[in-house]
This record gives sequence, C-alpha cells and structure tokens, in this order.
Amino acid sequence: MAELVQPIAPDGAKARVLVAGGTGYAGALAAELVWRHPHLELVRVTARSETGRRVSDLYPRYEVPLELVELDLADLDEVEAGIVAYPHGAAAPVVAEMRGRGLLVVDLSADFRLKDRATYEEYYGPHGAPDLFGGAAYGLPELDRKWIREAELVANPGCYPTASILGLAPLARAGLIEDVVIDAKSGVSGAGRGGGEGTAFVTVTENVNAYKPSGHRHRPEIAEKLGLIAAAGGEADAAPDRLTFVPHLVPVDQGELVSCYVTPRREVSQEELDQLYLDAYGDEPFIRLRDVPPGMRDVRETNMCHIFPLVADDRILVESAIDNLWKGASSQAIQNLNLMLGLDETEGLA
Amino acid sequence: MAELVQPIAPDGAKARVLVAGGTGYAGALAAELVWRHPHLELVRVTARSETGRRVSDLYPRYEVPLELVELDLADLDEVEAGIVAYPHGAAAPVVAEMRGRGLLVVDLSADFRLKDRATYEEYYGPHGAPDLFGGAAYGLPELDRKWIREAELVANPGCYPTASILGLAPLARAGLIEDVVIDAKSGVSGAGRGGGEGTAFVTVTENVNAYKPSGHRHRPEIAEKLGLIAAAGGEADAAPDRLTFVPHLVPVDQGELVSCYVTPRREVSQEELDQLYLDAYGDEPFIRLRDVPPGMRDVRETNMCHIFPLVADDRILVESAIDNLWKGASSQAIQNLNLMLGLDETEGLA
Amino acid sequence: MAELVQPIAPDGAKARVLVAGGTGYAGALAAELVWRHPHLELVRVTARSETGRRVSDLYPRYEVPLELVELDLADLDEVEAGIVAYPHGAAAPVVAEMRGRGLLVVDLSADFRLKDRATYEEYYGPHGAPDLFGGAAYGLPELDRKWIREAELVANPGCYPTASILGLAPLARAGLIEDVVIDAKSGVSGAGRGGGEGTAFVTVTENVNAYKPSGHRHRPEIAEKLGLIAAAGGEADAAPDRLTFVPHLVPVDQGELVSCYVTPRREVSQEELDQLYLDAYGDEPFIRLRDVPPGMRDVRETNMCHIFPLVADDRILVESAIDNLWKGASSQAIQNLNLMLGLDETEGLA
Amino acid sequence: MAELVQPIAPDGAKARVLVAGGTGYAGALAAELVWRHPHLELVRVTARSETGRRVSDLYPRYEVPLELVELDLADLDEVEAGIVAYPHGAAAPVVAEMRGRGLLVVDLSADFRLKDRATYEEYYGPHGAPDLFGGAAYGLPELDRKWIREAELVANPGCYPTASILGLAPLARAGLIEDVVIDAKSGVSGAGRGGGEGTAFVTVTENVNAYKPSGHRHRPEIAEKLGLIAAAGGEADAAPDRLTFVPHLVPVDQGELVSCYVTPRREVSQEELDQLYLDAYGDEPFIRLRDVPPGMRDVRETNMCHIFPLVADDRILVESAIDNLWKGASSQAIQNLNLMLGLDETEGLA
Repeated sequence: MAELVQPIAPDGAKARVLVAGGTGYAGALAAELVWRHPHLELVRVTARSETGRRVSDLYPRYEVPLELVELDLADLDEVEAGIVAYPHGAAAPVVAEMRGRGLLVVDLSADFRLKDRATYEEYYGPHGAPDLFGGAAYGLPELDRKWIREAELVANPGCYPTASILGLAPLARAGLIEDVVIDAKSGVSGAGRGGGEGTAFVTVTENVNAYKPSGHRHRPEIAEKLGLIAAAGGEADAAPDRLTFVPHLVPVDQGELVSCYVTPRREVSQEELDQLYLDAYGDEPFIRLRDVPPGMRDVRETNMCHIFPLVADDRILVESAIDNLWKGASSQAIQNLNLMLGLDETEGLA
Repeated sequence: MAELVQPIAPDGAKARVLVAGGTGYAGALAAELVWRHPHLELVRVTARSETGRRVSDLYPRYEVPLELVELDLADLDEVEAGIVAYPHGAAAPVVAEMRGRGLLVVDLSADFRLKDRATYEEYYGPHGAPDLFGGAAYGLPELDRKWIREAELVANPGCYPTASILGLAPLARAGLIEDVVIDAKSGVSGAGRGGGEGTAFVTVTENVNAYKPSGHRHRPEIAEKLGLIAAAGGEADAAPDRLTFVPHLVPVDQGELVSCYVTPRREVSQEELDQLYLDAYGDEPFIRLRDVPPGMRDVRETNMCHIFPLVADDRILVESAIDNLWKGASSQAIQNLNLMLGLDETEGLA
Repeated sequence: MAELVQPIAPDGAKARVLVAGGTGYAGALAAELVWRHPHLELVRVTARSETGRRVSDLYPRYEVPLELVELDLADLDEVEAGIVAYPHGAAAPVVAEMRGRGLLVVDLSADFRLKDRATYEEYYGPHGAPDLFGGAAYGLPELDRKWIREAELVANPGCYPTASILGLAPLARAGLIEDVVIDAKSGVSGAGRGGGEGTAFVTVTENVNAYKPSGHRHRPEIAEKLGLIAAAGGEADAAPDRLTFVPHLVPVDQGELVSCYVTPRREVSQEELDQLYLDAYGDEPFIRLRDVPPGMRDVRETNMCHIFPLVADDRILVESAIDNLWKGASSQAIQNLNLMLGLDETEGLA
Repeated sequence: MAELVQPIAPDGAKARVLVAGGTGYAGALAAELVWRHPHLELVRVTARSETGRRVSDLYPRYEVPLELVELDLADLDEVEAGIVAYPHGAAAPVVAEMRGRGLLVVDLSADFRLKDRATYEEYYGPHGAPDLFGGAAYGLPELDRKWIREAELVANPGCYPTASILGLAPLARAGLIEDVVIDAKSGVSGAGRGGGEGTAFVTVTENVNAYKPSGHRHRPEIAEKLGLIAAAGGEADAAPDRLTFVPHLVPVDQGELVSCYVTPRREVSQEELDQLYLDAYGDEPFIRLRDVPPGMRDVRETNMCHIFPLVADDRILVESAIDNLWKGASSQAIQNLNLMLGLDETEGLA
C-alpha cells in the first residue's frame, strides 16, 4: 500500500492536536476526523488499553496509521489542542492537565456539561476537577457559537441533548413549551464499545426496547439547557413544567432520532411554527429543515441535524435526527474546535 | 420429501376453514396457522393473484402445500368458517357472502372494527357491506372474550390498536387517562407485501423514521375503543381528552412496540399501577407482565403481548410489545376463531 | 400471568430430562424445546453462572420458568436422560457422570463426534473421558437413524457439519466427490454467547467477513464423516481428495447456509443428480429438496434442512440451509432423543 | 438552510459534467460525488422518471440540489464529460450521442465492457451502438491506468468483476490459476432500485441465499478479463481452465465480498504469494493488503478494495472486499474520470 500521509493544507499551517482515548468509538472517529482535516495535524492518539495497535487495525475502515500510546504528560507540551474521549469521571483530570498547559480542549464526556454541580454529583458522583466546573462553554455551535469562539474549554454535548435541544430550541426560546415528552431512538454505538450481551448482535437484531426508562443521565442536561434557553429568550418562567425522556435501543449502528411531543402554552399555527424554525436555522450549514419526517439514514456519517416540526393533534411534534457518533459526538467536537481555532466552522466536515 | 399431511386431532374432529387472501403476509400466516392447528382443517386458500402457486412456494418457510385458487363462491358451502385477509374495502363484500351462507367469519381488515360509520367513511371511504356495519364483535379476547364467544363475525383489531389498547386498557377502565402520547415503532411487515421503495431493504436498514405523523387510520380505532372501555368501566366522561399517535418504521421484520406516555387524572403509585395490571391480566395466557421493558424480540412469532407499566417523571409510561403479524393479525385471528368454535382459546397457538 | 405448566401428553407418560448448561444459546433452546415437548418433562436446568435466574428471565422469548441451578450429581438419579450443552472439553466429564448412572445422553459439544482421537486432541486438547471416546453414535438421524435408536450416547453434530454433510452425503455415498470447496455463511449465534467485540451489533451489522479461514475445527469433522460415508457406500477409496472449508460471519441472528462446490469424479447430469437426492431424502420429514436456492430464512426456527443441488459450470453446486441453533444444535438434539427413547422422531418438533 | 453551493477549486478550474440517469443508486451517487468534487462542476442530472424532483429529495442523505430533468441533447454541448448510469442496452445510444459531440464518457453499464461481441449479445441482446463496440478502455485503473488516461470512452466494470479481478489479477498475470471458484456475497443495492419483493426488507433481513447460481452476466466479464491479463503477462495459455461464479444476496445495504478459491498450477508458498500482491499493489492508493480477512464494513462508502491472500488447504484463498456502489460503480467512475481529465487520480475520493 502507498504510505499514508495526512492531506496538506494549502498554506501549510496546521494546528497540532492530541486525541486522548482512541479505542472507543467516539475517540477513534475523532482521531480519524482530525487526520483527514486540512488544517489539523494529528500528533498523538492515546489509550488506556490496546496500546501498540494502530487505530486502523482496531477500526479497519479508518486510515489513521498512528499507534495507540499511553498518555505521556510531556506530549501535552507538543500540541495546541486536545480532544478528550474518556469516560465520565475519568475525563476531568485529563482535561485539567491539558488546561494547565494552556491547551484548547474539547471534552466529549459529561464532566463539564452541566452548570449545576449538585445535579452533576447526583448523576455522576464526585467531580474530578472541581476548579474547572462551570467554566466550560456548552458546545452546541448552532446556539452558542459566540461563546465557543472565545472558549478555551468546550463541553461537547451528549448525543440525546444534541438532537433534543436542536429540535426544541426555537420553541424553548419563544417560551412555548409547557410540557414535553421526548421519545428517543438510538443506534447501538451510543452505548459505547464493550457493551457486552446487551449490545450483542443476537440481542439487538430484530429488536427494539426501552432502556433506563426513568432517570437517564441525559435528562437533566436537556432540562437545564432548555431552561437556560428559555431564560435567555426573555422567558425566564417559561422552562418546561414537565419533561419526560425515554430512550429506546434500535437495531441500527449509528443514528439517533428523537420524537418530541410538545404541549404548547398557546395554540401555534403550522405557519408560525415553520417561521420560528426558519428564523432559527435558515442559515445554518449543518441543519436541514425537512418537510417530511427525517430518517436516521439521511444524516448517517455526517455532521447534519435534520429537523421536522409539525402541528398535529393539538400538539407540536418535532422529529430531529443526527448521527450519534458524528453530530452527537466526534464531528461536533471538530466543529467546536474549528470555532475555537478561528477556522471556518465547516472545515474538514463537508 | 415426505408427503405433507395436516396433524390429526386426537378425536379426529376438525372445523373446516377457508382463508381468503393468501398472498399477503397476514393471510399466508393465517393459512399456515390453520394448517398446523389440531382442530382446524385448511380446505382452501384463495387469492386474487399468484393463483396456481403453492403457499409454500411463495413463502418457503411455511408448510402449506395447497395451491392458491381464485375464490369460488361454491367453496363457501364446504366450510364452516372463513378468515378474510383482504385489503380494507375489498373485505366487506367477501365477508357479506360468507355471512350470507352462515359461516363464522374473522375479518382481518378494518371494515368492521369501528362502531362509528362516519369515522369509517372519513378514513376508508364508502362501506362495502353497510348492513353488517356495527354488527361485529371487536376481536380483543383479553377484553371482549364473552362477546367473541357468541359472535358470528369478529373484526380482528389492527396491530397498533392491539398493542396500544392492551397496554392502556387497565388505565382506561379506571378512568385514569387524561392525555396520552403513543409513540409506536413497527416492523416493516406491517406495511404489507408489495410496499415498493419505501419498504426496500436499502431504504429501511440502518434507518428509523416517522411516517403518517398525523391522521393515521389506527388513531380513531384506538380512541374509540379507549372511550368505550372507559364508559364500560363506569367512567363515561373519562375518555382521554387528548390522544396523539405517531408511528415509526424500524429496521425489523416482524414486531411492534408502543410507548404510551400517560398524563394521569390523579397521582398513581407504582404499587397501585402494578395491582391494576395484575387484576386485569394476571390470568391471561397470552399476556406477560414484565419488570423490565420488553423488546420486540421477546414476542416474535408468538401470540404474546408483553406489558411494562411504570410511574416515571410525573407520568405513567407503558411499554407494550407484540408481533404485528401474529398477535397483531393472524394468530389473534386464530385465538378469536378458537373462541367462536368453543375450542380452548390457546389451541394451536402454544 | 397464568401459572405456566408444561403441556401434558395424551397418555401422561413423560421421560424425565435434565439439561446441563442452560445459559448459552443452545442449552437454553434445548431446555425450551424439552419444556414444550409433549413426551418429555423438564426436571432441571443447570448452569455454571447466572444461577438463581429463570431461563425465561435470561431469554424472555422462552417460557421455561425453572431457575438455573448448579449441577448436583444427585439430580442425575432423578432423570432418565440428559442433554449436555457445555463447551468442548468441559462436556466430557459431565457426560461420563451421566453415563455412569445409566442416563441416555445427547452431547452438543465436539467431545464425542470424532472417531480419530489424534485428530480430536490436535484440535481440542486432551480428552476428558477417554474411556468413552469413540463410543458415541454420530447424531445425524437422516444418515444414522438405526444406530441412534440403539445408542446410549449420541454426539450431536456441529452446525457446519450438519449442513455440509446432509448437503453432500448423496454424492459422497456414490463416490462422486473428487474435490470440494465449502463456503459457509453463518449467523452470529453460532459463535455462542459472550462473544465480545467480535459479535457486537456494531461490528457485525452491514458486514460480512471470513473468519478462521484455515484450520477451523469443523473441517476434520466434515472430512472424517464424508470419508466414512463413502466407505459405507462401498467407495472406500472415494473420499474427497481435497476439501476446503471457509466459514463467513453474516449479519444474521440464526441461520446457516453452506455452498458446496464439488468437482465430480465423472460427469453427472442434472437428472441423475436429482434422482440421487430424491432417493436419499424423498421420505425425510426434516429435509426439503428445493428447485430454487434456499435462504436461511426459509428454515429459521425449524428443524428443517433445505437442499438445492445443481449442475453448473462443469461442477456440482449444492446449497444447504439450516438454522444453526435448531437443526445445527438443539432441535437436532431433540430429534436424536426422540429416537433414543423410541418416540416418533418428529415429536415436539413439528 | 444555507444555500448550497459546490466547493470551489483553488484555481477555479472545473470540468463541466452531466450525469445521465440520476434516479438509480449508482447515478445518484455519481452525481453526489461530482457535486462534492473540487475540480468538477455538476451541470445537469438527467432522468427518465421522477423529473422535477431534486436528487436531495429522492435521496435525503445527498446534498445535490439540482432537479432531475429529461435528457436534452442540446445540453451535451454545454459539458465536457458525461457519466452514464443507464440500464444495459439503454446506455449505448446515449453514449453514442455523447461521443458524437466529443464528450469524454464513463459508462457504468455493461454495454462496452466485453471485447467479444458474440458474448455480449448472448447475455444482453443486440448492441445499441455497434460502431463503438470494442472501442472503450476497461476502467480498472489499478490494472489499466495508462489506457484510461488516453481513453475517450471508459467502460466502468461491474461490481463483481471489480472485486474478483482485483483479487485475482496478480495470480492471473503469473499464470497461476488452473481453476477458480468465486463465491460472491453482495449487498442489496447491487440489485438496483425498484427491485420489488426480492429486495424488500422483509425478504432480505435475517436471510442469505444464492441467486442466478449459473449463467450470471458477470461471469463472462470476469473470465474474459482474467484471460486477457494472463495473456498480457505472457501466459497466453494460462487462462483459468475452469471458473465457477455464484453470487449470494446478504442482508447488507452496500458492500461486496468475493471469496476466490484458486487451485494453483503449481505449489505456491505464503511468502511468494505475499510478494506477488505487494509487487502488484504496494503503491496503490485505493488498495489495502490485509493480514486478516477484510469485512465489507471496512470499505463501506469508500473507493477502497481490501485484499487478503492466503495459502490454505492446498489451495489459495483470496478474499476481496469493496463497496459495490462506490468502487464497484460510482466512485470508480470518478477515479476513471480523474485519469481521463489529467487530474490526480484520488481527487474528490479521499
């Protein structure tokens, strides 16, 4: 085979990037996206297991020829940015080391997503870098672009919050959500690598089932953010009164669809609804407003979010689809990093 | 191969049955279930296309060696019962012919399910046998067993109504449903044979999408029946105020899961909820109450309905799973026919 | 739910059966098939892990309400027959204990399949019950029915040998196979429970790949048996000169298809070929000769083997399909046990 | 949504391209790949049905915002190159029109692949542009790069020939193939759009079956090309004596794996085998030599071919994997067009 080399940017300038946690689905994809990116140089991919193997051996559909290595803190001095794909709890200390050396950091874990520390600790336990808690920008560029541009630490949202919040933000900002049921359908990769019997082919194929039907960790992340959006929209008292979130596992590799059933605070016409979404997303490169319900396949292996809002049966239905590993994790991390580095937001993602 | 013969009942007595419409998924399965049934004799399988082919050539996983033939009205004098698996609208005249000759009939179409004729005509157009409209028993044995035993015409429920109504009936009877969102996930066979590009493997695999997000034909069937159940429970004014029903297509062959999000009229404890379902279904041979959310796979190719009720986030969640072709169509037809013939309800279905 | 009880045989007589190894796919299915069998009583299901859980909790699509228990040797005195679903190597000592107490035994492992001990030890290591080695009947009823009827220990064949040998036996017996390539496609359940990353949904879906492309353990089992069949057919020198076997993993739960490419020792016409297969299998209840290539789906969850022989491009192609967990393991075990007990061979399997 | 515009090449220069036949899977993907290509401008996408719809409405995962239009011959004067994705037989006249106007043409049909006209007519019927028959370069860049660079008409190979010939070429060139069995496994998209019941999800899922087990149209294409390669390698008499080709349908959307079982003319060591393949493909950007058997997933939605050669059981096994719609059709068309236009071969494909 030809020797693999990264593509070269026209002007030769590249930001140097380390990806921490390259064995899991999200970390490996983040490494691949950095590798293919015209303005990023993939310097190191670290891992806590499988060291010595190439990313492209572990995931033969990827090109990254780098061997996985243990994290050496000295390496942090060689790069300008880090993407952290560690489990919740394990990420915070690594993020702190990176920030201590001045790196720009995108963290894919939940460790810096919430603003309320008590909520964090209820769902995830003690925080591993309390000094940094609350100091990250929430990485949904379509909503928070200006803060992300200034940020040195970005908390990349969870996959369910990404699809749900993008789907509901125009309604939340207008203070329209009285009550919402979010029925989510997720591909299996959302459960991460090493899922055991529950994510075995034999268990999942020809099957659909709810899991964690109450108390899922992504619920408070969605609820907190919708409240903040309502407040920012001048509708401080208009956070949803009731929010139910139930995820379902579907026999799909990568993909996520959330069906949001909103009871609105007042009657809304289809015309008003369409205008709300057009105002919010008409110029967004990674959102497509649909006039038929989107499918997971439509956004597979892209950074796109497809959204379909409909007035139906006295309610508002919003169907919102993403690829849980891309827009719900790794490609959104690149989108955030692009913004932090002053690059074009779509670079490496088109 | 050995000559195929039907199994023989211990006492040799068998009711003679004709299946009308044996090319589609539901009709072919009904024929197969009659063929394997110890107390039924499969006399004829009719079809409007593919005549001359054996059912077992069209569906090699089935055994039925009978050739499909055009419906000959004279054949109706040779049998005691008919199962009609024709499309909506086309079924009614065939049912009328059968009833005119005194046959017991189970009709899998929508033609006799609704009690309100205006609703029928709004969704399906003019009725093909208006004299019989309203004269059928609704074929949900777990709710209507005593009427089915007396009935000469049974309207077999749709797959979505079967899963939804069985899941919600204990709450409806107690007058507890103020508002309900039904998010349904259905396997592809629910769309019937000959679905074209929309049901092609390439379209459906690795995909999930909503379809007919408003105005689905099964919504009025569910709403009407829940209202009747509430009224029969002495809760005449307690029909749901609001009912939203949105079906989704999932990459599954056979299976259906409905997720029902109920806003209750009053607070209900988990203990009360469990007792309601135990009282309703504790003795049912084809219902299993679950303490974890059921998956479609758990009921595949069975007449079972698995139900999981949960108090969650100020709401009641009910997950209800069936096989859309079995309990949602053909095996439920056998269950109904068993009752009509005075046989054990589980005969041929265990 | 209604209390689950096993169906009762008309004359009430039932053989008492213990299934050893009920957590794996094959053992759990064997337990379920015994449970549903009109002439067998499921007395105990043992396991080396997950004890205390019901089979129907582990596999909610099964009915067996018995809790898994550790194997207690005293239990062996309470039953007449044992089905052993332990891994290779671990099975032999359990089989020896059972045989020592006079039980009829069907062993699903490879421990008693081979006649040549050196071959066994090359592939599986030292044997755990050398006194019994060579003393089992090979459990392919369509070929060895008369020995199985007399046997006290039956070695249930592997799934690949079942499909391959049934597909090739008529040619082997006639001494026609000079050279054969067997390209096998197997569903994921063939790898057993707990397969890890290699059998994860995310790894398997939308994928097909060869595995163990040389040296698979089932190759010598196939080769030895084809040689014995040729010899028994009076063609002692007509064992295949060359046999290549390569298995492939396909994104299917249960199912196995082997494509056998035979270079014949002499020209064979399609007519002669058809007659060979008709003579061999025309009266077999569990074999269907097909005139189009069979699919895995055609035999899913049945004890059937569908076979399609074709003269093509100067070769003979034989496509043979089974369900790897049913005819390739557990339902074939029941078929064997029926024969050993003097029951009708199809009992509990129709 | 943001207005979609094609990416602009650094120097602004773009070749103008028309895609004929944009409703099918291959044509739509070709249009998408042209749309994303930095040095190609997608001017028109024609179709014989669905005109007036955008490609991105028909295939929401694609971006192409152009409406499908009927082919207007005047449009051919506006472009420099055409990609034809018409069915066999229908393609030739369109290709002739394009060539008559001096366009560079890549034809995805079989109309110009074969060198022997009698063979063409045996499999496809009368040829639609006999003057051009035999005048196309066969579009396998890894073998025929120098001719493709000079060609004005390139016949893009079929998907099975692409995977098979790339897998076998090093052996054919060395005159080593005495006999070969090709057992092919193909994803469903290979059957094209509108496949009817045979490609319905319900038919394909959890299923694998052979189809057209003799006489498949791709067999003569493979045989002819292997003969030409052997002759070009100075081994004129070393074309395979016997070639069997049997395709199987697997429950996969896009992907193709061919398993080639070669009986070699002489003994070959693993070391020699590895060297043969390294010499042939060591510098190829779109071929990866593997040391474990490749899976279809490894090459999904890429222009890659992964090849694994192994000495096994006195034979040579070669496993070769491509994406049937990409390297087996549309992305290979782009690779060919790049060569014809003097662009870097990998442009728009990395």
